[in-house]
Amino acid sequence: MISERIDKIIKEILPLEDDFRTKARERLDSLTKPQGSLGRLEELAAEIVAIRRDLRPELKKRIFAVFAGDHGVAEEGVSAFPPEVTPQMVFNFLRGGAGINILAKAAGAEVAVVDIGVNYEFENVKGLINKKVMKGTRNMAKGPAMTMEEAVKSIEAGIDIALRYADEGYNLFGTGEMGIGNTTPSSAIVSVFSGLSPHEVTGRGTGVNDGSFENKVSIIENAIKLNRPDASNPMDVLAKVGGTEIGGIAGFCIGAASRRIPVLIDGFISTAGALIACKMAPSVRDYIFSSHQSVEKGHIKMLEIMGLRPLVNLDLRLGEGTGAAIGMMIVESALRIYNDMSTFEEAQVSESN
Amino acid sequence: MISERIDKIIKEILPLEDDFRTKARERLDSLTKPQGSLGRLEELAAEIVAIRRDLRPELKKRIFAVFAGDHGVAEEGVSAFPPEVTPQMVFNFLRGGAGINILAKAAGAEVAVVDIGVNYEFENVKGLINKKVMKGTRNMAKGPAMTMEEAVKSIEAGIDIALRYADEGYNLFGTGEMGIGNTTPSSAIVSVFSGLSPHEVTGRGTGVNDGSFENKVSIIENAIKLNRPDASNPMDVLAKVGGTEIGGIAGFCIGAASRRIPVLIDGFISTAGALIACKMAPSVRDYIFSSHQSVEKGHIKMLEIMGLRPLVNLDLRLGEGTGAAIGMMIVESALRIYNDMSTFEEAQVSESN
Repeated sequence: MISERIDKIIKEILPLEDDFRTKARERLDSLTKPQGSLGRLEELAAEIVAIRRDLRPELKKRIFAVFAGDHGVAEEGVSAFPPEVTPQMVFNFLRGGAGINILAKAAGAEVAVVDIGVNYEFENVKGLINKKVMKGTRNMAKGPAMTMEEAVKSIEAGIDIALRYADEGYNLFGTGEMGIGNTTPSSAIVSVFSGLSPHEVTGRGTGVNDGSFENKVSIIENAIKLNRPDASNPMDVLAKVGGTEIGGIAGFCIGAASRRIPVLIDGFISTAGALIACKMAPSVRDYIFSSHQSVEKGHIKMLEIMGLRPLVNLDLRLGEGTGAAIGMMIVESALRIYNDMSTFEEAQVSESN
Repeated sequence: MISERIDKIIKEILPLEDDFRTKARERLDSLTKPQGSLGRLEELAAEIVAIRRDLRPELKKRIFAVFAGDHGVAEEGVSAFPPEVTPQMVFNFLRGGAGINILAKAAGAEVAVVDIGVNYEFENVKGLINKKVMKGTRNMAKGPAMTMEEAVKSIEAGIDIALRYADEGYNLFGTGEMGIGNTTPSSAIVSVFSGLSPHEVTGRGTGVNDGSFENKVSIIENAIKLNRPDASNPMDVLAKVGGTEIGGIAGFCIGAASRRIPVLIDGFISTAGALIACKMAPSVRDYIFSSHQSVEKGHIKMLEIMGLRPLVNLDLRLGEGTGAAIGMMIVESALRIYNDMSTFEEAQVSESN
């Protein structure tokens, strides 16, 4: 047992029913276009019908949860940016000036900013959701990043956020994150689950140079050697080489799935969170959509493990949820096609031979 | 000389100035994100600044031109749909029930429906733009699809549409088309310009079966053998194995470029039009953006010839401009990032080492 609370929520996740998919496809095939000619837009619409168990899904209440946390391993020089950028960016999110604010707005979504582990005392900052598990993780190059208890707390925090917005009627979620150094735990996680070496699944993050890149790879190698995360125990992996925001995203995906809310996952770090969630509860996979393929080379490996195909590849590597916002626009397009197009009968258009 | 009018418009197309691109990149690098981390969104923004010669471009007046035309070659059984679907779909566009109507609306764009060569007498249908060159092309399996004069007229019609909307203040264009049988001339065009055999660049269009597919390939082979289009003369190619809507799209791209208006080109047929335009006036290339990679296998070959990279690949093969509408949402995202994100200075965020 992980925690009574987490176990209970996982048990609430239902498998999708083919019946809804089939009915959705029937409607799609009746619309004035050659069958299947809108490709992935049609697939998306059918999956969302199945998730929502609603033959006319309108997902207009949309929110991004942006989980912010710091990383002890940043002291090893794995990022080109100093750690104080994490709280600075939290303020930027709250003022609405960051990439995710701009793109979430374009996608018709709100942004919830969650302090799940920032190494900064925010006190009572307006608009910031306080779910702080710890003031930054410990340096995984020297020992486990979190205790098992802290890892559980980070998952539970993510679940709390998902259930809160589900209760408020939100019906389409996106994931985002901020945390200087957080490509390092993400690479460690994909290395552990894929069995590939850190060298094969580590990228340059926000822009480290050649020397720093080699340093980053060896930090990850040593952290795995030192902490021996158990690939068959996702909570152990999360605790030893993960991060609070990664746990938060995992919990957010689990919570969303338990309430039948589709989740657009962003890039490398978000997908590390989704991967932890899917390892804890494979049924989560049906509720998540990969928005974009990140420049980070370990990202596609994570998606392969889960059998997910990204919607777009725009060479993004910012994080925050920015790619998921693009994905949300595509989901909106899919739903409009599904709901609003005329049928052959309505439009009196001849069908194919 | 092609036509005095077309020559004059082509001469008005200016090359892009690096100065604007450079200034756009300076702004992009000052925004609160690692440099270049928004990948293709940043590239798009810089190109649009260069096209518009405007350091704060807001492209809010958006329109899709959907050119509809019929094809004599449809009588050879190259499509799964009967030719009467072309006028039926024109009515569907005018009523707002087709895929392009739905997605253009989602992208904040209007839709202009142009009869450039439909084999149907519309009389005075409200909202339809009459630029009819002919009532369907002639069957290219038996002779040239158009005379040179008709081909010129189709290009001029496209130019007219572009200039009309440019004069009305529209500043972002998308291309679309409708024409039963029109993947056949498009495959012929890419075969002629690429030197690849029709078999290598022909797909199944809207859904023909194996037998019909082989028939389609041999129809294209024979049409090229019979008509001998001259690859060094794009007007000759357009006339002999093209179509009116393909000419319209070519003219629309040329007209847009002459007025410094970026154009999102849709899939296979639209790209055939763009390819004709680029062969007539290589400077057009800087003004067009490939929105998506079509399922039609000849499409990527066309893009390679022009050196264009599609923004997304969502397995679309509908046409009408639907993929370009998705592209338009991505352009909008790029411009919002460029115009609306906070700078490091504004947000008091530390820059990288």
